[in-house]
This record gives sequence, structure tokens and C-alpha cells, in this order.
Amino acid sequence: MTTCTDNRAATLAISDFPQAAIFTDLYELTMMQGYHASGRASEWAAFELFFRRVPEDGGYCVAAGINDALEIVPRLKFTSEQLSYLATLKLFRSEFLEYLQALRFTGEIRALDEGAVVFPNEPLVCVVAPIIEAQWIETLLLNIVNFATLIATKASRIVRAARPATVVEFGLRRAQGPNGGLLVSKTAYQAGCIGTSNVEAGFRFGIPVYGTHAHSWVQSFESEASAFRAYADVFPDNCIFLVDTYETLDSGLPRAIAEAKRLQAAGHRALGIRIDSGDLAYLATAARKALDEANLPYVAIVASSDIDEYIIGELKAQGAPIGVYGVGTRLATAFGEPALGGVYKLVAVRPNGAWIPKMKISSNPAKMTSPGVKQVWRWESGGAYLADCLALDEESPPAHMRHPDLEYKQLQLNPQELRPLLRIRMKDGSSIGGPETCAVVRGRVASELNKLPAEHQRLANPHGYRVGLSDRLWTCRREMMERLL
Amino acid sequence: MTTCTDNRAATLAISDFPQAAIFTDLYELTMMQGYHASGRASEWAAFELFFRRVPEDGGYCVAAGINDALEIVPRLKFTSEQLSYLATLKLFRSEFLEYLQALRFTGEIRALDEGAVVFPNEPLVCVVAPIIEAQWIETLLLNIVNFATLIATKASRIVRAARPATVVEFGLRRAQGPNGGLLVSKTAYQAGCIGTSNVEAGFRFGIPVYGTHAHSWVQSFESEASAFRAYADVFPDNCIFLVDTYETLDSGLPRAIAEAKRLQAAGHRALGIRIDSGDLAYLATAARKALDEANLPYVAIVASSDIDEYIIGELKAQGAPIGVYGVGTRLATAFGEPALGGVYKLVAVRPNGAWIPKMKISSNPAKMTSPGVKQVWRWESGGAYLADCLALDEESPPAHMRHPDLEYKQLQLNPQELRPLLRIRMKDGSSIGGPETCAVVRGRVASELNKLPAEHQRLANPHGYRVGLSDRLWTCRREMMERLL
Repeated sequence: MTTCTDNRAATLAISDFPQAAIFTDLYELTMMQGYHASGRASEWAAFELFFRRVPEDGGYCVAAGINDALEIVPRLKFTSEQLSYLATLKLFRSEFLEYLQALRFTGEIRALDEGAVVFPNEPLVCVVAPIIEAQWIETLLLNIVNFATLIATKASRIVRAARPATVVEFGLRRAQGPNGGLLVSKTAYQAGCIGTSNVEAGFRFGIPVYGTHAHSWVQSFESEASAFRAYADVFPDNCIFLVDTYETLDSGLPRAIAEAKRLQAAGHRALGIRIDSGDLAYLATAARKALDEANLPYVAIVASSDIDEYIIGELKAQGAPIGVYGVGTRLATAFGEPALGGVYKLVAVRPNGAWIPKMKISSNPAKMTSPGVKQVWRWESGGAYLADCLALDEESPPAHMRHPDLEYKQLQLNPQELRPLLRIRMKDGSSIGGPETCAVVRGRVASELNKLPAEHQRLANPHGYRVGLSDRLWTCRREMMERLL
Repeated sequence: MTTCTDNRAATLAISDFPQAAIFTDLYELTMMQGYHASGRASEWAAFELFFRRVPEDGGYCVAAGINDALEIVPRLKFTSEQLSYLATLKLFRSEFLEYLQALRFTGEIRALDEGAVVFPNEPLVCVVAPIIEAQWIETLLLNIVNFATLIATKASRIVRAARPATVVEFGLRRAQGPNGGLLVSKTAYQAGCIGTSNVEAGFRFGIPVYGTHAHSWVQSFESEASAFRAYADVFPDNCIFLVDTYETLDSGLPRAIAEAKRLQAAGHRALGIRIDSGDLAYLATAARKALDEANLPYVAIVASSDIDEYIIGELKAQGAPIGVYGVGTRLATAFGEPALGGVYKLVAVRPNGAWIPKMKISSNPAKMTSPGVKQVWRWESGGAYLADCLALDEESPPAHMRHPDLEYKQLQLNPQELRPLLRIRMKDGSSIGGPETCAVVRGRVASELNKLPAEHQRLANPHGYRVGLSDRLWTCRREMMERLL
């Protein structure tokens, strides 16, 4: 019931990561020592962060977490306590630990804009840096980008299913970890929720916060009527009465209506009633009818109780007159599939000034990577996204693309309508461009989803968005496969 | 490859929660103002935290997060920045915000021991405090206890499935949020994993950390053989060769064997090979045979790739000779069901010196609560847990219990063999007893699971553990239902 009032940057801070330098899997550090000991510490390499499939068999993801990662990476450094700890592991040489003391990230990061729609096998982030530094930030980047992208995607699905009803994020009590909850609230707002119950998220990022009372409020009073009355006395302009503590239709609803009428007579307006259990379609329909008959058309029906995009779709199909969905657990944990499988793969090394493309071979074609430092070109025409083409970084906008594996799948592109998606966001270890506000990212997500044709946003069996390789990249990949297999 | 070396307390710190006082849903604060404005701020109430069903239809949960919560709660206070923010919301009166400035938690917390096995509808935590304070900590308690209990339970299932093979937690890159990852590593270790890849968890809690190298290490070299050689040169006593970068059996395995033989000749021992893709049963069997034929029986096979308790069970049924499982995504996110639905319900109020029991009524019998401040009595006989009985706090150990709803289900108990599970862990806002180490909690989880009969630990269709109500509690509940319905 508040509005987003300020313009501060909507990113996590390094103070959220007091141990950021060792926020990593041990193998990053052992490999780093390996590169250091082999004299390869300053050899440059390029890594790409991408995912291979969309959770819940969806048709797209909303890229997120990139701005947070860009805020943290330039501030990474080992503390003396961390180095002392590493020394206790009996794995690291003293010259390596001394080297770590002065280590900073000095490389380049290219990335999608926060909030861009993205598809399988496209890089969200490309790190071009001394291999030891690129390896250092792998786990941190994956943790932040995997989770934020997962939640942004889930939230966008739920918001779309609910429209024109709105969605408030209620998930803090079931979120996976304390700052998991904070990231959910921020990301869900940017992806289209109208706000959150999470007060810390309001404080940190200026996100609108929502909430009135729980069952315990009602239980703690002698009667439901006295509980509603006491709440309305304190918050005459912020009343959403929770009506299912005892009997929704026989007790909660008529008492909420009585209280709303009393507020109306005193020049106030109750905002809504909330139903948190039972058959939401049946109860909402009955409640709407009773509210309308009581001349309270402005009192909204808020529904909350294990809600997700699928349940919203069913409720809408039944015509349930729900104005606001409070979505908690299933949004905050991406309940349907709670992880995005983003990976971070080496695509090139530059031992002596020239890039050598690298790829990971697999007996599973879906696990083969595409070699080389790349750009993603997006074809937009008439306000709609048509296809994306991966190309080697040095190529000009390609006029033709091919399916990575199926030879008969090819597509002519219009180079004039292609736009490169990966922008240099960090150079020599310093961020380029100021941080962005929640409002900017939120606007971008809305615009991106507006351009993505509806067939790719269907929950069930979405049409696959076309992502191909330029002829040069395709040929480079084929030659490497032949050499390595 | 390190050991748990120190005795520090294994809890989160208040510095992990810089905004702990507003780590809350807005409705807690609006209710708090409501109680304050109604003159009920110092009225005492009792809330219980419990869950109604076990994730993935399991037979038990491992209670966790309690020690973390007890560390944070006594340190809660509002900062002036937080209060200034709350003032901007135009919801709170200045006298209430002034009241918050001095607010501390002064109540009592009764709780299970960290690592105890627990069943649906039993309180894990009982908060007895001024209602305004009890409401304040609701979201924080739920967030911490829900997530930690979820992960402890999941980890215990995976560890049990793998035994005698061991499990290392590898989930940081897919965990939901930065300190979500930290909590996973700690909780999984306490629940039986032998360690983690997460270096921060090693640094913070002294948990053994594991890791060697990734595909990128192999790719970055001219050849797989030179990559293994370079790694072994730096870490001759910490080698687990990842063998699936190109072709597992034709390339990775023979090269790893060659390198292991070379290490052996130089007086070292390779620890293992790791297989991260493909048919793990087939590949592990072939690799074990080749390793044994090469006289390398001590080189373990480590498997990692979307592993969980079900896949481990299948691999074991096929006789896959895997010695160590690296379990990431599916443990760190509790992939099968990524949330525990813990709730926090008002069970009694004490407006004038005497407790008045309260309950939540519902048309769904499973959602009815049990009224009153309660104790949980556990019946242990011959080293095995037989049943739990909820009783009113003032009762002596009950000799008989009843199913809450099914009248024909009753059980005689032996009061001599009953032990109360809820202990007073905080009094007047101060913790009682020192913090516990990881090792203590880890030992407790092992002992608890040892006492829980195997039929309750089955993954599929576990036998339901008996949880009943004492006759007095049963009668109190029935009388309240009749009055409220």
C-alpha cells in the first residue's frame, strides 16, 4: 500500500557478501593455484554463462542478477582471515596465497541487459579475463544469475497469467535463505509484481510493500467482529480483512462487510477482503456477489493459498472475480522447478595474443558447447522478436543462420534489423554505466515481454524461439567437433 | 579433502542479517501497531511453529535452523534508518515508531534440539512472549527454520540412500541466494554429508571442503593428458581427475589411469576419478574394472550429475561401484519439493494472568490447529522411537493418547519411557546454554536417525509415525471446536 518512492540502485551490495572472495567452490581455488604454478596466471580466457533448457518447459527466460553481479565483482578481494584459513587446508603454497592477497578482477564482462528475454544456449554473460580471474568469479556469477533469472522468469509467468488482476509477492517465510528472500522480492517486482510483503525489500530498494493482518490477529480477540473493528480503528485506510479464520461465508465475510460499511459511513474505503483457504473460485464468487449487493464494488478480493500460474489460469477459467493474488511459496522457490541449470563454460583461450576457440564435447548433443567469443544478434521486426543468431565476435551482422545440429533448418536474416545483445558492462575491472533502478529494469522487462510473441509465452507447449548459428560459427563448430571426436 | 578442525559455534550471526528487525512481512508491523494502539502490547501470547506434512511424502523431518534463530532473536533492534523508512510509508504513528525504537525480544522460546527428528503437527518452536514481540519474529523464524529443516531432511535422505558411499554437497552455484548456499552447506554437513565444495562454509564453520578441477581446466590445455599431468604436478596428493570432458572411456579414463600410475610410482596416491555426465552406472562399472586391472583399487569413483536419493537408489540397485556422490542442485534446492510449509499459529493468549487456549478452525480438518501451550512427549523404548504425544504444558507425562480426529485410534503409553522434547532455550530474551558446534549437531542427527525405525525412513510410502494428543488436550480441542463451529 505504498509506492516506489526513490531512485536508488536496485542491486545487492558487497556488504551482502562479506566473504565474497571465497564465495566459491574449492575447485576454483585449486585450479587457480594450478594456473599460477603452471605460469599461466595471466593467460587470457573467455567463459560464457548460459543455460540449456528453460525451467518447467517454458519458452523463454528473463535474464536477471547481472546488475548484482556487476556490483560485486569489482569489489572482490581476499581478506587476511580468509588467506589464513586457506593456509590451514594444506593445499595451497605460500607464494600462491601471497599472489591472492593482491588479486583483483581486472577483466572485461559483456552481458545482456538486466531484464532481457533470453533463450537456451545463448550467453547471458561473457567473461574475458586472465583465466585465473575468470575462474575465481564462476561460482559467484552462477549463484546470482541462476537464481535471479529463475525467479524473474517464474514471476513473469505468474504476472502474465493473472493479468488484469495484479500479483503481490508474499514469499519471505518460505524463501530459501535470508537474502534469497530479498532477491525474490526485488526480482519479482522487476518482473511485474506490484509489490511485496517484505519490509526489508521496501527499505533497501524502495519497492512498494503490502500487508494488513494474519489469522492470529483475529484469533487473539474475543470475536472476529471485534478484531476487524480494532484493525479498522487503527488503519481506516489500509484494511484488507482476512475472512477465513473461522467460517469464510458465514462469519468472516458478513463481518468484513459490516466493518466496510461502517468505514464507508465514516468517509473511508476498505481496500479488500483476503481469502487464504478453501475453494477460492467458489468463495470469491460468493464474496463478490455479497460485496456488490452491499454496495461495496470497490472492495477487492485478494486470494492467497499455494497459488501459481497454473492455479491462476484455472481460477480465471472459472471466472473467479479475484482482483489481487498474493503469491508466496510457489513464486519464492520457483516451486515447479526450483533451479535454473546455468553453466559457465570455457569458449576460448588466448595464450599468445590470438584467440583459440575451445569447446566441450559430449555424447549428448545438447551438452556440446559452441566455441569462440561470441555476440548474440536479435532480429526484431515490426515490434516483435523473430529469431536470435549467435556469431563470432568479429563478424558483422549475419544474413543467414543455421540450426546447430539439424542441417535442413536454416533461416535468412535481415542484417538491418539485427541488434547485438551483449554489451561491454565492465572493462579493466571497472563497471561501465551507472547502476539501474528497479523502475528502469521493471520497464524493460515489460517492454521485452511485449515484443516476445505470445506463442513463446504459453505455459503449455510453447512454440520454440529460433536460436541459430551464423555460417562462420557453424563451420568453426563443425571443424572442432571433427577434430575432437 | 580437509577435516573439521575447530570448535566454533555453527550458527549464522546477526551480521548476516543487517536488517533483521525489518526482516518481516509488513503485516507483522501493522498488527504490532494494532496491538500497541489497542493497549495490548504487553499482553502475552503463545505461538507454535509446526508443519502439516513432510515434503516429498517422506516419513519424518530433521529439525534445523533453531540454533540460528536463537542466535539472531536476542540481537534484534530497529535502527534509526529503518524507523525513518517506516515513517515514509504513512501507515505508522509516531508514538508507535518511538515505541519500536526501544523494542527488544524479552520473551521465552521453547524448542526442539537442533537435529531432532520431528513429525507433522508437532511444534518445533514455541514462542511465549508479549504478543507484539511474538508477532515481530514470526517471519524470521519461519524463514530460517523452514529452509534449514527442508535441507536437513533432504540431505539425510540422500546420505542414507548413498551409504556406505559418502556424499559431498556441491550445490552453491544453484542454491537460492548467497546465504541460502551457506545454510545448505552447513545443514547438509550436519545431516550427514562428509563435506562441501563451498569454501565460505569451510571458513565460517570449519566444515571439510572438497574439490579439484572442472572441465575448463582440461579444455584450457592442449590435451587431456597434459591437463591431468599439470594438475598432478601441483596437487600430487589431491587428485580427482574429471574424465568426461571429451570421451570418458576412450580418453579420460586411460589418461587418468596413466597419471595415477605415474603418481603411484612417485609415492603418491590419486584419490579418484570423477564422472559428471552419461550413464553413470555403465561408466562407473567400466571405470572400476579398468582401475582394478591397473592395480589402482584405492582410486575412488566420484559421480556427479543431477543426483538425488532416487537416482542413487537406482545406481546402487544396478551395482554401480561409486564411492562418493557429489550432490548439488537437487540437494541445495530440495528439488523434489522445494519448500517446507511451516506455519506459526497462535495457540493461547494471556490477557489477565491466565492462559486462554486459541485455535484456528477450518473446513479442512488438516488445517485445524491444537489449542494451548503444549509439550511434546516422545516415547522411546529399547533404543527406538515409538510414538509422540502432544499434551498441555501443565500435564505430567500422559499414559494414553488419541488420534486427533479418528476416535478409534488410541494408544497406551508408558509414562516412564516418555521424554519431553521442547526445552526452554531462551528466557527473558536471553539464550540459555551455549551455542553448539557442527560436530555436536551432526552427532545428534546421526543418533536420532538411528533411533527412528527404518519403516519411517523409507523414501516410498513410509509408515506413518504415530503422533497423538493426550486425553486432556484432545478434550480441550473438541470443546473448542464445538464452541467455534
